[in-house]
Amino acid sequence: MSVIVEKLALVGTGLIGGSFALALKQAGAAGEVLGVGRDPARLAEAQARGLIDRAAAWHEAGQADCILLALPVGETGTVLRQLAPHLKPGAIVTDAGSTKANVVAAAHAALGARAADFVPGHPIAGSEQSGPAAARADLFLGKRVVLTPQPATRAGAVAVVRALWEAAGAQVETLDAAQHDRIFAAVSHLPHLAAFALVDELALRPDNETFFRFAASGFRDFTRIAGSSPEMWRDISLANREALLAELDAYTAALQTLRTALSAGDADALSTIFSRARQAREDWMKKQDA
Amino acid sequence: MSVIVEKLALVGTGLIGGSFALALKQAGAAGEVLGVGRDPARLAEAQARGLIDRAAAWHEAGQADCILLALPVGETGTVLRQLAPHLKPGAIVTDAGSTKANVVAAAHAALGARAADFVPGHPIAGSEQSGPAAARADLFLGKRVVLTPQPATRAGAVAVVRALWEAAGAQVETLDAAQHDRIFAAVSHLPHLAAFALVDELALRPDNETFFRFAASGFRDFTRIAGSSPEMWRDISLANREALLAELDAYTAALQTLRTALSAGDADALSTIFSRARQAREDWMKKQDA
Repeated sequence: MSVIVEKLALVGTGLIGGSFALALKQAGAAGEVLGVGRDPARLAEAQARGLIDRAAAWHEAGQADCILLALPVGETGTVLRQLAPHLKPGAIVTDAGSTKANVVAAAHAALGARAADFVPGHPIAGSEQSGPAAARADLFLGKRVVLTPQPATRAGAVAVVRALWEAAGAQVETLDAAQHDRIFAAVSHLPHLAAFALVDELALRPDNETFFRFAASGFRDFTRIAGSSPEMWRDISLANREALLAELDAYTAALQTLRTALSAGDADALSTIFSRARQAREDWMKKQDA
Repeated sequence: MSVIVEKLALVGTGLIGGSFALALKQAGAAGEVLGVGRDPARLAEAQARGLIDRAAAWHEAGQADCILLALPVGETGTVLRQLAPHLKPGAIVTDAGSTKANVVAAAHAALGARAADFVPGHPIAGSEQSGPAAARADLFLGKRVVLTPQPATRAGAVAVVRALWEAAGAQVETLDAAQHDRIFAAVSHLPHLAAFALVDELALRPDNETFFRFAASGFRDFTRIAGSSPEMWRDISLANREALLAELDAYTAALQTLRTALSAGDADALSTIFSRARQAREDWMKKQDA
């Protein structure tokens, strides 16, 4: 594969940023990779692990052909304001945040006219692991990446970002930013909150050790996402607050429906709910495998 | 290993019963294995897969040294009443149900004085897979089995059942039946209901395909247990209703606490909950690995 960007800059050299860089290096799609960030030790670790070629200052990052923001979404505005004065003409900025409407708003506020060069993106890949040590070149292989370009976004910028994710092995789709946020509130953000809440409720019990002692593989998988980064999920929750509140209410209502059936000893109602859920999940898994 | 029981009978030849028989055969701990059940086709499949040596009628099963019930807990009473008139002196009956207080009550009602030979048990192993095809000899290897003997349970019967599970590779513990049910309401039954409710709530949406299309690995793991047998989970829910209702209420309250923090935009409260949950899960995982 030929080089797509001569110079790539990462703001955030953790799981997502690091994996993106590794994949593009492996594909020969990126030349030099710069890393920008507040924490010199983390940048040194990223360099030692081969995620970046070297650390750089903001003014140097602005001279890159493409700058990827891969950090908690709450930091997007601050980072874009630091970057804005240094952006060279034609430089493309993109991000990997799990929410998009707030990122689009932050880009408009921080970049003004240059927001046309900002391509909002969300790789649907990850892990409860985080940090430079978790990065791997195949993280995005076969995974979806959703881009949510705005009407004013430059088509050439979208094409470059799409090409980069494809070079990393991903399958790229586009969605409206608000629709993206509604969908992910339901299939990702709510499950994370539901897992955090379940583990925390147990952890707060004085006799929690008795319970944890007998938790097994079902509990382990159900709560895997409760091992995710608290900072990242605090930011996602706040950024997608309205959609997530609606999902929490819908979920609470579904739990209440189950509670009513259980309280009434309604075996048929329980069977119906459990069977419908199992069928829906089986259908989903089949499509995933296909 | 020497033979612990010359003749073993399984009522239920699915994942749990079949795996128990395979493990004991492999360990040389069981001689002949009989299978009892209403469905001749299922018994034939169990025989073809080597889970049982042959199908048998109730009066023959009652002549076995040990009879394992491995079926939805709601059927325990019916099965024990069928078995009761045929039980030879000294025959030990045990079960593998996920709830124990209702099983203990059913054993007392159906077996009378012979309830002393009934050893209530619960292997903490399983899978969202079910049926004879899912059975495997190593299912219980390194897993816990909880026995909940009553004061009147014959110590010799408990010793035999313990030896059988240990021969299958499991680690045996004992608990009070009511305490067992409270613990598993929290760490197993509630997570199952929470997963079923989440998938069902999505499945009922007219535009559910849009959502399922973007669900990824976090969703897959969180909802794995929603692929479990609806009949089994209907029975467990009803059998452990009171404890499960209390858990549903505690969980709903925990979700409500999260909702309040989110609604207020309280970043610190969200961080605190997420961090505490992640820490608790990490601590739990470390103990699991140890």
